[in-house]
Amino acid sequence: MKKEKKDAVKAENAQLKEEIKSLREQLLSQQQAIRAKGLPIIVLVEGWAAAGKGSLINELISEIDPRFYNVTTSVITGEAESRYPFLYPYACAIPENGKIMFYDSGWMEDVVRKYLHRDITRAQYRERVRSVNEFERQLRDGGYLLLKLFLDIDAGEQRKRMSALRENYETAWRVTDEDLWQQREYKLFKQSYESFMDKTGGLIPWHVLDGNKKNLAVRDAMKLLVESVDRALEAGRYVGKPFKESFPLRKMPKLSTVDLSPTLTDEDYRAELKKLQKRLGELHNRIYRMKIPVILCYEGWDAAGKGGNIRRVAKPLDPRGFDVIPIASPEPHELARQYLWRFWTRLPRSGHVCIFDRTWYGRVMVERLEGFCTEDDWKRAYNEINEFERQLTEWGAVVLKFWIHIDQDTQLQRFNDRQSTPEKQWKLTEEDWRNREKWPQYEEAIDEMLHKTSTEFAPWFIIESNDKKYARIKTLKIVIDALEKACEDHMA
Amino acid sequence: MKKEKKDAVKAENAQLKEEIKSLREQLLSQQQAIRAKGLPIIVLVEGWAAAGKGSLINELISEIDPRFYNVTTSVITGEAESRYPFLYPYACAIPENGKIMFYDSGWMEDVVRKYLHRDITRAQYRERVRSVNEFERQLRDGGYLLLKLFLDIDAGEQRKRMSALRENYETAWRVTDEDLWQQREYKLFKQSYESFMDKTGGLIPWHVLDGNKKNLAVRDAMKLLVESVDRALEAGRYVGKPFKESFPLRKMPKLSTVDLSPTLTDEDYRAELKKLQKRLGELHNRIYRMKIPVILCYEGWDAAGKGGNIRRVAKPLDPRGFDVIPIASPEPHELARQYLWRFWTRLPRSGHVCIFDRTWYGRVMVERLEGFCTEDDWKRAYNEINEFERQLTEWGAVVLKFWIHIDQDTQLQRFNDRQSTPEKQWKLTEEDWRNREKWPQYEEAIDEMLHKTSTEFAPWFIIESNDKKYARIKTLKIVIDALEKACEDHMA
Repeated sequence: MKKEKKDAVKAENAQLKEEIKSLREQLLSQQQAIRAKGLPIIVLVEGWAAAGKGSLINELISEIDPRFYNVTTSVITGEAESRYPFLYPYACAIPENGKIMFYDSGWMEDVVRKYLHRDITRAQYRERVRSVNEFERQLRDGGYLLLKLFLDIDAGEQRKRMSALRENYETAWRVTDEDLWQQREYKLFKQSYESFMDKTGGLIPWHVLDGNKKNLAVRDAMKLLVESVDRALEAGRYVGKPFKESFPLRKMPKLSTVDLSPTLTDEDYRAELKKLQKRLGELHNRIYRMKIPVILCYEGWDAAGKGGNIRRVAKPLDPRGFDVIPIASPEPHELARQYLWRFWTRLPRSGHVCIFDRTWYGRVMVERLEGFCTEDDWKRAYNEINEFERQLTEWGAVVLKFWIHIDQDTQLQRFNDRQSTPEKQWKLTEEDWRNREKWPQYEEAIDEMLHKTSTEFAPWFIIESNDKKYARIKTLKIVIDALEKACEDHMA
Repeated sequence: MKKEKKDAVKAENAQLKEEIKSLREQLLSQQQAIRAKGLPIIVLVEGWAAAGKGSLINELISEIDPRFYNVTTSVITGEAESRYPFLYPYACAIPENGKIMFYDSGWMEDVVRKYLHRDITRAQYRERVRSVNEFERQLRDGGYLLLKLFLDIDAGEQRKRMSALRENYETAWRVTDEDLWQQREYKLFKQSYESFMDKTGGLIPWHVLDGNKKNLAVRDAMKLLVESVDRALEAGRYVGKPFKESFPLRKMPKLSTVDLSPTLTDEDYRAELKKLQKRLGELHNRIYRMKIPVILCYEGWDAAGKGGNIRRVAKPLDPRGFDVIPIASPEPHELARQYLWRFWTRLPRSGHVCIFDRTWYGRVMVERLEGFCTEDDWKRAYNEINEFERQLTEWGAVVLKFWIHIDQDTQLQRFNDRQSTPEKQWKLTEEDWRNREKWPQYEEAIDEMLHKTSTEFAPWFIIESNDKKYARIKTLKIVIDALEKACEDHMA
């Protein structure tokens, strides 16, 4: 290199370092506002092996108070080992309000690499791209600032860096077989990365950084971060507008038209129960071995008989393979994250049955009616939930949703019964009485929920529960049918 | 079998079933009291392969409201795959107040099997037995009811059952190679189980159930559960007495005698910082590859400079391999469990560095002084914490604890500085002023803490931080020394 050129490079670097320093101070001074306004920030850093993702993140965080951020490394695992939906590790790692999470490569690398490995089919690849877009939109609409960076280097630079790493005993281990494969297949990867960015850049744009020049990449990344934080702080917490995608919906009756008269005799009940539980036990065994995840969602009126119904379904299940998850009001650390987070983190491993006693539908019932979220929030939730459940079924889960239904008279009778029976009194709270007063508003909300979220892939079932015995048998039959079908599909 | 004998067996079984039914009703009626009194219950079910642990648990839970209990299955993994202390999965799974957790085999099977596999040495086996005793005592002293069952069957019965399982296509998979190995080595296992129970039955007794007769085992297990719950409910929440084991302690000075005058010039600071951070970065790389877990604990006066100190130590670390964990007041779900639970669940994977910004020592400082726990609780905590930290170091962790120290004048100066600097105001709260008023009480508590918990395996270091630069350099040097030593030990 000629002296003039060397000097020019030197001057450029000095200039960049000055800028980085000043940007770093700006970021530092934004810290308090991020915290005060509770802005949650996700910085996704994708890019080539040896492009310097780790050291870029290092530069970004170097002056941030470590209590404000975290870094998560994606663990890319083969399909066979993975027991959760592919978005699971990323969804579980989202930051709480006022904090920054850096993803040191994430869902992009995950999806692209699994596709190139042929761990997933073309159709699955398309599904995952769609899920990624949904996931990102949901985060944005939930008030998250999402910055997506891709650190680019050319094939020659990558080869040079990998060679340098491999020559040194202390660093040789950093270059994996996967990395060498990428180097050999540089063109294929380039095409795949570009195609992925093309398909996922519509809503939240990708920023491609020139990783050949380290200081330049750092400056650009930091500038993007500082500017987008500024914009987000100024605009205030973003709340996404409701939107409507068309899902394949099942037609649901209005609750008021449901015939609640069906009953079962004790004798029929006992005979059916025994037979169905035996069958369910066998199916659980098969489900377990086929590694099919099962998610049963229970919602219903207070005192409708959810608990007893759940107990009858759970009884024949191998306790090593199922969990009942009671959902109460969210705790502070749960409120501090997107509302689906506390459900993501409770998903079952594949092959396990997970029974949710109340669910994410709280969003469009109690949270809607009690004003715990904005109107935009709950109106958006129907689609968000449909998307979430579609992601679950695409992972392979059986998702069934039960509305345990009774009428107002039956509820009153059961409330009174609880009140006068000492060992049942704990089941009845002031809140139950308050909710009862809002029956019409709830009924309206529930009708809307059933109408908008009973999809072909995750249908609702209204379970007539004025007679609890009838309700339990009906539920068992539905679960059994669905599991039998899932087992058949699995074999096919 | 003769007819008389058959009839006798039949009558016995009928009788047992009656008893089981009645016990089940008792358990059902205890449910509300368990909940109301917040009694947390652990039922550990160990025993032979094919002894029927799963179906015993099934019987025990069959009428319990699924919201009240959970079942966890131990995942016994080879030493190589395990990235956490051996008690980690069990400690993370403890139930919250008012709930029951069934362990479908647990720490006993884990320790015995790893020893028989020679995954752990004789010395490690002894350490683990001791850790198990400590773990169980800590749970008991924290108010947990712990019931330990061993389901026994003889070699012939085991062989018979395994053969039956293997003959049926639907159940053959349940018999693993491990199970077959146990069958072949029945005598060896018997000896090992007995020896383990012998060594861990002193404080919380083992109950051996006759698994050859299913109904008998169920009756006995249920009876034990109902009776012990009765006793626990009657006695009220158990609070363990303080106790004192002798640990190898380092002599610590009283805080009042610490010379806080050391300082560093800006020039020396910058030169040292650069050199030490470079060295720490290299060591982190080695630590990561050697899979040595590192746990750095920060405690100190408000405004002592913990945050800045942590930042200087964290800076050279690869962000993919460390986490800073800020510890605030416990949330409801954390308060509902033994106090160390929220730290167990945050332990780093081996090879990672975990920096705790405040720690479990809150127990003997703020919780002691503000009355958030009983006197017995905090007095017991010194030993409990020493045990916990010894368990961590036996896992292989480097555990270092820093008391970031300043005097009252310096604190006042920094408080005033914070108050008058807008971007620092958030760092100063009313609580800081209140704590300051209690300086003498805190100093007494801290002196006692340093005196009682600065063990050879997990020592305290007082970091003079009137001059923050001096403090940072001192901390870095201590961390580097310890990591260098750990790397050497690892090679040896």
